[in-house]
Amino acid sequence: MTDEELLVRFFEKDGYVKLSGIELVEVTQEKAVARAEIGAEHLNANGSVQGGMLYTIADFVFAVHANFVHPKSVTQGGQITYIRPAVTKYITATATETVRVGHNTVSEVLVRDDKEQIVCVCHFNGFVKDVDKEELKKKYEEERK
Amino acid sequence: MTDEELLVRFFEKDGYVKLSGIELVEVTQEKAVARAEIGAEHLNANGSVQGGMLYTIADFVFAVHANFVHPKSVTQGGQITYIRPAVTKYITATATETVRVGHNTVSEVLVRDDKEQIVCVCHFNGFVKDVDKEELKKKYEEERK
Amino acid sequence: MTDEELLVRFFEKDGYVKLSGIELVEVTQEKAVARAEIGAEHLNANGSVQGGMLYTIADFVFAVHANFVHPKSVTQGGQITYIRPAVTKYITATATETVRVGHNTVSEVLVRDDKEQIVCVCHFNGFVKDVDKEELKKKYEEERK
Amino acid sequence: MTDEELLVRFFEKDGYVKLSGIELVEVTQEKAVARAEIGAEHLNANGSVQGGMLYTIADFVFAVHANFVHPKSVTQGGQITYIRPAVTKYITATATETVRVGHNTVSEVLVRDDKEQIVCVCHFNGFVKDVDKEELKKKYEEERK
Repeated sequence: MTDEELLVRFFEKDGYVKLSGIELVEVTQEKAVARAEIGAEHLNANGSVQGGMLYTIADFVFAVHANFVHPKSVTQGGQITYIRPAVTKYITATATETVRVGHNTVSEVLVRDDKEQIVCVCHFNGFVKDVDKEELKKKYEEERK
Repeated sequence: MTDEELLVRFFEKDGYVKLSGIELVEVTQEKAVARAEIGAEHLNANGSVQGGMLYTIADFVFAVHANFVHPKSVTQGGQITYIRPAVTKYITATATETVRVGHNTVSEVLVRDDKEQIVCVCHFNGFVKDVDKEELKKKYEEERK
Repeated sequence: MTDEELLVRFFEKDGYVKLSGIELVEVTQEKAVARAEIGAEHLNANGSVQGGMLYTIADFVFAVHANFVHPKSVTQGGQITYIRPAVTKYITATATETVRVGHNTVSEVLVRDDKEQIVCVCHFNGFVKDVDKEELKKKYEEERK
Repeated sequence: MTDEELLVRFFEKDGYVKLSGIELVEVTQEKAVARAEIGAEHLNANGSVQGGMLYTIADFVFAVHANFVHPKSVTQGGQITYIRPAVTKYITATATETVRVGHNTVSEVLVRDDKEQIVCVCHFNGFVKDVDKEELKKKYEEERK
């Protein structure tokens, strides 16, 4: 099993991501992409995608990417700016790293609607822990059993 | 029907809040409080409450409070700092306004675990629209039919 | 006098930017760049460039770029993440726009040291006002007299 | 010499704070307050206090307070929301801690004009290092010589 597969399996245990119908599309050194089909359960009282749903897909795709690029990363904080209401059949979220120095990583996540329009811009800070990658791999392998 | 009841009914239409099991406990001029019982569907792969869930309850309780204090408010952005992992039976989120000047409102939301410990600190910026409150009330009344 | 020259002259009136020894290097549709030679007056008690100085050059270069690309823009907020201490002879700050929709613009500013290393990452939100560009030009022309 | 005096002396070495005319008024467990008389050198091109100046006083008063309450603290990031233009003879900035858990501290800083009106709201995240307070005291004592 590749590192990527292990990581993906680990994140499959995320209950809230599952509840929210969010799926990981792709994870590489360059970026991670997640996607969610939008149903009534994702909408706010105004009929557009709820802010928490937009944040959740962004937070998730950042966590996957950060942990893929340099395990093990812990999210310290996130920030979201809403650009336009998302009235759409699906949303995608793409995470890219802006910079990583020592224990610090800063990434950007753009969430887009089904017309490829950006609906919100997110930034995340993560703390990269000093961990033994082999030990982490073992942990992932054991946990997925 | 009081203004508070109308507002609460309006926000009851929020599908993602419902999916997430979040309930409004209280809304007054001073603060709004929301609460959610935590189940497996709210946990991340590490077994603590998922970051998106923490953000979602905060975003919701801010929106309710801002719209109660000065309708109609639109959330422009939010920021969350994670303080400790939330391993807990339930979480509560309390929104208070820091300052409002003209179209701008800034609020703080503290999310706590079942030991009353703060698990994350959130800040939100809202834009207060110039709307006729009677018209807004009518809109809420019609939409709830 | 070109639009760019007018804008530059307008921003030359910024007293705090002058006090801080910050100079505009370049402004185009794609980006704006500012630069400052670092002296003892820019250092914090630990001997690296003070956080306020790093923020100030970032805030300035964002304001110039936003007003160049779509006058007139007003800064609503900024966020800075410190990546490494800046021990350097000069710093540069480069602003690029992430997205602009309607009244909202979100930009990123990267501040670098004399080794081209990123020392902090900044994000700004601006509000783009509906103004008559000819009127604004007149205002700039009058103010510079 | 008391801990407070040592800390104050340490921060007196901050060159940019000096350049900006910022003075520490008070530091206690509960809060820290700084103040600056406003001159032409603090104004932006529109004639109100420049955003970088507002951020700088906030960043400074947070650093003093965080290091007073639990030395040694390092600022990780800051966020500022501008509420109203500051046209004023002086500004004050007051830092209070929202929460501190382990290595994390989150604080709020409010900057006010000479009418006691809030002009911007700031939030800071700090990392509290594990240091020997006696060693730190020695370092401060030596550095001030």
